[in-house]
Amino acid sequence: MNLPTHVRLVEVGPRDGLQNEKKPISVADKVRLVDDLTAAGLSHVEVGSFVSPKWVPQMAGSTEVFAGIQRKAGVTYAALTPNLKGLEAALESRVEEVAVFAAASESFSQRNINCSIDESLQRFIPLLEAATTAGVRVRGYVSCVLGCPYEGAVAAERVAVVARELDAMGCYEVSLGDTIGTGTPGATRHLFEVVGRAVPRERLAGHFHDTYGQALANVYASLLEGIAVFDASVAGLGGCPYAKGATGNVATEDLLYLLDGLGIVTGVDADRLIAAGERICAVLGRENGSRVARARRA
Amino acid sequence: MNLPTHVRLVEVGPRDGLQNEKKPISVADKVRLVDDLTAAGLSHVEVGSFVSPKWVPQMAGSTEVFAGIQRKAGVTYAALTPNLKGLEAALESRVEEVAVFAAASESFSQRNINCSIDESLQRFIPLLEAATTAGVRVRGYVSCVLGCPYEGAVAAERVAVVARELDAMGCYEVSLGDTIGTGTPGATRHLFEVVGRAVPRERLAGHFHDTYGQALANVYASLLEGIAVFDASVAGLGGCPYAKGATGNVATEDLLYLLDGLGIVTGVDADRLIAAGERICAVLGRENGSRVARARRA
Repeated sequence: MNLPTHVRLVEVGPRDGLQNEKKPISVADKVRLVDDLTAAGLSHVEVGSFVSPKWVPQMAGSTEVFAGIQRKAGVTYAALTPNLKGLEAALESRVEEVAVFAAASESFSQRNINCSIDESLQRFIPLLEAATTAGVRVRGYVSCVLGCPYEGAVAAERVAVVARELDAMGCYEVSLGDTIGTGTPGATRHLFEVVGRAVPRERLAGHFHDTYGQALANVYASLLEGIAVFDASVAGLGGCPYAKGATGNVATEDLLYLLDGLGIVTGVDADRLIAAGERICAVLGRENGSRVARARRA
Repeated sequence: MNLPTHVRLVEVGPRDGLQNEKKPISVADKVRLVDDLTAAGLSHVEVGSFVSPKWVPQMAGSTEVFAGIQRKAGVTYAALTPNLKGLEAALESRVEEVAVFAAASESFSQRNINCSIDESLQRFIPLLEAATTAGVRVRGYVSCVLGCPYEGAVAAERVAVVARELDAMGCYEVSLGDTIGTGTPGATRHLFEVVGRAVPRERLAGHFHDTYGQALANVYASLLEGIAVFDASVAGLGGCPYAKGATGNVATEDLLYLLDGLGIVTGVDADRLIAAGERICAVLGRENGSRVARARRA
């Protein structure tokens, strides 16, 4: 059992989290959240998304958020950019990294981004070229890696094909997302075994949703497969759009508790992270989705 | 990686769960809960506790509950019996099994059951003799196996001593309880490695609380160590008395989801189990603590 000694946490709360919260919040509150997170020691934060506010009103003001944050040395400030127009705006905001989003399920791709998996990948090629020219790294997401809300089971081999494409076109890392949270540890290990033959494991990340309570068990299974990068959302921000009232992203606090317990180094301070989560929950008027945060209140 | 092919789930909701719920419920509702659980396929249910209702008002009426349930062949109906008086009442109620409760932490033992660990073990010897004479099996619990609310860390070697004593005096199984939920998978594996040298692993069970969100990761870690019996509480009944507002027992539904996903046989039907949990939550007027149950509502 050789667990990684270090793990990089990719904080997706300000983007994947807030995007799935009903209540849009102010630019000032977003800036504060990002700064709180980097002050807690997170070295990789997805700050926002450069998409039309018509489609995702929660992500309006990403340019202002990037302008307002206090940039810390050594921190990667990233943004989701679905197309070239988004990339241009991101570059103007001096992002360190952009992310593109593909699906492992054809139905999900069609319904979520209105094109086939192949079309989405083709669309990313010029985006990656432009980003690379601008000296900006690109991270790839693959969604529905352990199940699709429309198709059900998704074969690991299909995930591997999409991950390999993203890797081949220059994504420095591919994050595999269990979008609907139906994965369990055996399937998770199988996934990384299969995808790990297409893309080196050190360029793979795990992105787990806790909808069915399985996220941390899946993280532990991933660690046993040598995966050392995980996405998480402070306070478990972001619900699950496919199961109302259900849990979405795994809470960064709970994931950190797991890693701290395993003696794995992350550089993140639990107390400051918990405080950041409590603060944004107060702003949103939502319950804190982190069980660690709730236990610590007592 | 040799996971067990079968797991026995020990449903502790009617006892450990309800005992830690503020609102006492009627005998009829308890009977219905137990019958719902066995109808869902659970073969091992802790029905109640024979203790003074002065100390634990939620457990009043255990005699009436045992008289009211529909006994199903092949199901073990168990009760917690802290002393000989409790055992006598349990035997009159024709229980199949009784349970005794020790701690791995001296401070917890003193504050929880008002005696030292050794005194509690000495007290169990005549109880085990009487139960064995009556043809009733005895299950042992050890609490605070991965941390104590008063002492902090608890060495696995101390747990092993207590577990070995319970095993030696005739407990057919010893359940190791992470009472405050602070355990993480590495500590869990270490625990079973150490205790497994004192008591054969097939006579050990895992009892995890989800207070810090770690329960299912710890279950997976236990499965990897060959543990094949787990305690759980439908709907996550029972809070954590040491952290108000926090989560207590791992929800049986969520544990079942993990096991089903791993292809491990339990004999439990998820839909009927979820229905049982939803019903008791309505009676208690509490939120359902199972994330699977909440996701399925959508």
